[in-house]
Amino acid sequence: MSVFSANQLQGFAISVFESIGCSSKDAATAAAVLVSADLRGIDSHGVSRLKGYVGLYDAGRINTKAMPKIVRENKSTFNVDGDGGLGLVVAPFAMQETLKRAETYGSGWCAIQNSNHFGIAGEHAMQASKRKMIGIAMTNATPFVPPTFSKQAMLGTNPMAWAFPSGKKFDLVIDLATAAVARGKLEIAKREGKDIPKGWVVDKDGLPSTDIDVLEKGGLLSPLGSLEELGSHKGYVLAGLVDILTAVLSGANYGPWVPPFVPYLPLLPNLPGSGLGHFLGAMEIDGFRPKEEFIAHIDNWIDAFKSAERINADQEIFVPGEIEYNMEEERKVNGIPVNNKVVQDLEALGKRFGISM
Amino acid sequence: MSVFSANQLQGFAISVFESIGCSSKDAATAAAVLVSADLRGIDSHGVSRLKGYVGLYDAGRINTKAMPKIVRENKSTFNVDGDGGLGLVVAPFAMQETLKRAETYGSGWCAIQNSNHFGIAGEHAMQASKRKMIGIAMTNATPFVPPTFSKQAMLGTNPMAWAFPSGKKFDLVIDLATAAVARGKLEIAKREGKDIPKGWVVDKDGLPSTDIDVLEKGGLLSPLGSLEELGSHKGYVLAGLVDILTAVLSGANYGPWVPPFVPYLPLLPNLPGSGLGHFLGAMEIDGFRPKEEFIAHIDNWIDAFKSAERINADQEIFVPGEIEYNMEEERKVNGIPVNNKVVQDLEALGKRFGISM
Repeated sequence: MSVFSANQLQGFAISVFESIGCSSKDAATAAAVLVSADLRGIDSHGVSRLKGYVGLYDAGRINTKAMPKIVRENKSTFNVDGDGGLGLVVAPFAMQETLKRAETYGSGWCAIQNSNHFGIAGEHAMQASKRKMIGIAMTNATPFVPPTFSKQAMLGTNPMAWAFPSGKKFDLVIDLATAAVARGKLEIAKREGKDIPKGWVVDKDGLPSTDIDVLEKGGLLSPLGSLEELGSHKGYVLAGLVDILTAVLSGANYGPWVPPFVPYLPLLPNLPGSGLGHFLGAMEIDGFRPKEEFIAHIDNWIDAFKSAERINADQEIFVPGEIEYNMEEERKVNGIPVNNKVVQDLEALGKRFGISM
Repeated sequence: MSVFSANQLQGFAISVFESIGCSSKDAATAAAVLVSADLRGIDSHGVSRLKGYVGLYDAGRINTKAMPKIVRENKSTFNVDGDGGLGLVVAPFAMQETLKRAETYGSGWCAIQNSNHFGIAGEHAMQASKRKMIGIAMTNATPFVPPTFSKQAMLGTNPMAWAFPSGKKFDLVIDLATAAVARGKLEIAKREGKDIPKGWVVDKDGLPSTDIDVLEKGGLLSPLGSLEELGSHKGYVLAGLVDILTAVLSGANYGPWVPPFVPYLPLLPNLPGSGLGHFLGAMEIDGFRPKEEFIAHIDNWIDAFKSAERINADQEIFVPGEIEYNMEEERKVNGIPVNNKVVQDLEALGKRFGISM
């Protein structure tokens, strides 16, 4: 484990993105989104992914000179073709336009095709809440989750994020993958030698498993809800919702055809769309109720939930976005711990491109 | 168990709503929404609720002469004051305006305050998919779910529905409560003498319970995800999302202050808003991609999921809205079974108002 400042990681990431052909502007945009994940404690979506992005570039599956553009529109709604670029660049471009449409029409909604992995969904949604609007961001992702009653990888961990401005130190950010757990949680359990509960994963026959190595044996992640009797169909349809909004609506690939993040997995034949898909939204608050009134009630909502009766007096109740905000404040001061495996990956990239940390 | 035709139930419901003061038009609207639940197999939200609506009327908590109106707007976004009316009437009024805004601005979004229970969310969302738009409907509801780490009822089963037009016999309708299970499932398990799995409910101390009578002993429903280790915080924040969009955004009551559906439970003091809240949306598809192309890909998505590899060859995989459609087709032909307890309730209402089935 080594500790780096956000600036160090961001500078390094900028150099890596420039080395694979991004403009300085695009490299800075991409690095900022990436390191926001490390700051917020979502280490699986930060600089640990740099190696993967470079791998996709090497495989000819990312266009680092991409010029995303609006290809279709109807007032508050529009479609962006990401030109095969980094989602880390395409999504910020599309979100800027989404915010403009919200200023003009009260709300703005963008479906994005022909893109790639866009980092953490929350970061894009928060571009709206920073401007005192409501923000929405979703993406589809590498198929790793079966629908209820199936053993086939048909859906990704397909996250959705909704960000609401508050008068507190942090915005209220609801950001969740629609699988029961992230892969990262499995990796942590493995490192720490812990057992995993029934409901996180299924084996290659689609049956619930507690084998921590099951993903290497053809197993898959369970949808949110975990087990049929606990409502796994609800996680399945939420992942499906994200798949439809991000890809069926945009013209991207959906279901089993979503291009995998890892470059060594081949694309399926007969792709129904282009790249992977995102869906972004922004709503001005004033059309619903006065903005300051809304924010005062968001604060009241937060206070009510923070002071709800606890199960254990010592275990605080958290509101959405609070844990990530606390982590960010802590890591801004004390730096970002990066595990040895990721440090090695970064060193290898540094060596290849002649960059030092 | 008795069996009635949809027309019988609808005619009876119309007479009941007229008896408590609704206009013929409002009574017909309310009855149609109610019976759509019975037809789709969501018996807990159909005529079994008539007694409850009448109870709320008796308690002075429903205004059957309500005139819902738009009280604030900004192009694609607006706020409706439900005037304390039946959600079954207020939501259809608001959805009509939402669809008009979508026609004008590409999308329409409505937050509704000062309303009451609106039936099944899917029925409102489907008003958009019937017109080849995307429809969204959410509502908050009687507090019955604690946030993770809390033992207090802070959230309802807060459902969300998203409806997408298809070229198949049925639209793709994602309609889920954000609790692990509906109360109705507990009642069915009890009637059938079945055990319930750990994860459906918690006891009065907030701990997972398998006691089928736990709700009568101060227990609560678990959020989707069921247990802390299986991601109950995701169900909590999804229920929170619905609470914020439907109530914090509209000016309705939220969190523990949501007015309970049962008339014998009192309202909390210091209400932060009016009535309960809904959130509705509609999006035209053409701004994203040509409508016919979208529908062709929705059909392809459905075909892909229906033919995904099965765990058991005999267990079909369902897509969202399919089971409810199949039920509706079956019940249109064979009638709607109504259990004896509900029949007694309907008979009592019939006696009181001089209506025969």
